[in-house]
Amino acid sequence: MREIKAYIRRVKLEEAVHALEKIGVTDMAVLEVKEVGSGEAPEGLRLSVDMTESYARVAKLEIVCRKERAPEIVRTLREAAYTGQPGDGIIYVTRVEKAVKIRTGDEEF
Amino acid sequence: MREIKAYIRRVKLEEAVHALEKIGVTDMAVLEVKEVGSGEAPEGLRLSVDMTESYARVAKLEIVCRKERAPEIVRTLREAAYTGQPGDGIIYVTRVEKAVKIRTGDEEF
Amino acid sequence: MREIKAYIRRVKLEEAVHALEKIGVTDMAVLEVKEVGSGEAPEGLRLSVDMTESYARVAKLEIVCRKERAPEIVRTLREAAYTGQPGDGIIYVTRVEKAVKIRTGDEEF
Repeated sequence: MREIKAYIRRVKLEEAVHALEKIGVTDMAVLEVKEVGSGEAPEGLRLSVDMTESYARVAKLEIVCRKERAPEIVRTLREAAYTGQPGDGIIYVTRVEKAVKIRTGDEEF
Repeated sequence: MREIKAYIRRVKLEEAVHALEKIGVTDMAVLEVKEVGSGEAPEGLRLSVDMTESYARVAKLEIVCRKERAPEIVRTLREAAYTGQPGDGIIYVTRVEKAVKIRTGDEEF
Repeated sequence: MREIKAYIRRVKLEEAVHALEKIGVTDMAVLEVKEVGSGEAPEGLRLSVDMTESYARVAKLEIVCRKERAPEIVRTLREAAYTGQPGDGIIYVTRVEKAVKIRTGDEEF
């Protein structure tokens, strides 16, 4: 299995979630994170490290899927989160060794 | 080493943490995340993408452990987080290449 | 590529971010997490599982980089986050299969 982590603009979050639902992605987690950066910084970002105010706030999406589905999910996320302006964000793919559903005990690899 | 990430009901968090402590897990991180999903959705979840209100709030636990300990930790988490109702959540296991303790510099693989 | 995840004292966050910027790390994500633990617990931590109050709050840094850069980033983080007291935290390195920039579509492996 694969884990897909995407750091995207908060204003693009709803669009991204809807686009994923359309292709049948039924479970994802959303976190709010602070991003500090320079080259590809979202608008409004300053290189300050004041924890509370000066970071850009971005949405992080976490999705675990079968290996074969990862390319379509990455493509869908990219299209939904795209504006063409610096700061559109980035998508990472990592391997997941095993997933266990708590209710059923079903395992996937 | 392995990283174990569990997305569980918030009401099961204390039980899960206590169960882990009982088997000697001494360090874990807890995050609050929003979950959007359908099939296995926690109660009260609607497929809305309103960032603030309509997601289900779930607890995410992050635990890093030696490879040999992972099965026991997964089993313990599953038992503690189980209700039998849809939305009990899921546990993922991924590989960790290296861990470095900041104070001592000790490395584990 | 590699993902570096560091759980550090919140009071060391600014120092860590500045140290990383000095060695050219231009993008990182910062999350606030709750840590429950015993042996290496940050000051003020009690082994309570009251979700809101009794966890230690620590900063989690997430940085993705080329494989070759990982050792320097880990060393820099360790130096910046070090106090010598228990609870300095820990740094994990994991593999990233692929990174895709949303704006440009550039992929890195």
